[in-house]
Amino acid sequence: MSDSVFAHNERAPVGSRRPLREVLDALPFNRDGLIPAIAQQHDSREVLMLAWMNREAIEETLASGRVCYWSRSRRRLWRKGESSGQIQRLKEMRLDCDGDTLLLLVDQTGPACHTGRASCFYQTVRGDQVEVNSAPLIDPDELYRK
Amino acid sequence: MSDSVFAHNERAPVGSRRPLREVLDALPFNRDGLIPAIAQQHDSREVLMLAWMNREAIEETLASGRVCYWSRSRRRLWRKGESSGQIQRLKEMRLDCDGDTLLLLVDQTGPACHTGRASCFYQTVRGDQVEVNSAPLIDPDELYRK
Repeated sequence: MSDSVFAHNERAPVGSRRPLREVLDALPFNRDGLIPAIAQQHDSREVLMLAWMNREAIEETLASGRVCYWSRSRRRLWRKGESSGQIQRLKEMRLDCDGDTLLLLVDQTGPACHTGRASCFYQTVRGDQVEVNSAPLIDPDELYRK
Repeated sequence: MSDSVFAHNERAPVGSRRPLREVLDALPFNRDGLIPAIAQQHDSREVLMLAWMNREAIEETLASGRVCYWSRSRRRLWRKGESSGQIQRLKEMRLDCDGDTLLLLVDQTGPACHTGRASCFYQTVRGDQVEVNSAPLIDPDELYRK
């Protein structure tokens, strides 16, 4: 039952639709009740970050249009930008084939990363070294003083 | 100790480097010994899929240049494309700020998704419905007959 929506959609033609509620009921949340969500800037297509959502975070995000995650460290809902002001507006939410990952197309205000960098993925493997590939857009001390 | 590399890099200037081995030793794998890896097509910037890697999969991928994941369902290393032929060549591997997610810039041969679609993210939320947003490039029966 739980994967029947996704099994059905594998062979479904473009444009076919299923009720959102049925899809949310079928999501295979992990043992902590969470699912990973990738945030991608909708126009530049830069991958900004990965965070986690529970069902409540998904529903709030869809209802408000502002991205809300579940903070695993703080064990509570985390409205992205609530302390830094660097919010994410949801442009589109997509689900992968087996429903165990979300892709959020967002419009990010300022940097996505708590270090002040545009993207969290600022460390690149170069041979046997890992190199810092970008600089903060805003000093993080400044970001969290606001 | 385990997060000192990442704490250090938060304030490190562009171009500064740390040994790869030190970074891999500090990766906060989950309780299953895994870390999520996002695959993004390097030129179009389309997000293709999310899968999981253990340390062995990361090291094999970096050594061979061909992406190897850990299959959670089959509980073994999964050299992407081993049955379908739709392999991923690694162009660049990046790590996020706290080292708990990888971003793989890849060159994908054919469709990334087992359904034959270019990307696994082919289901889009539209109001209170979820819509199939793309068609297979190749019939999946054809894909796995090869």
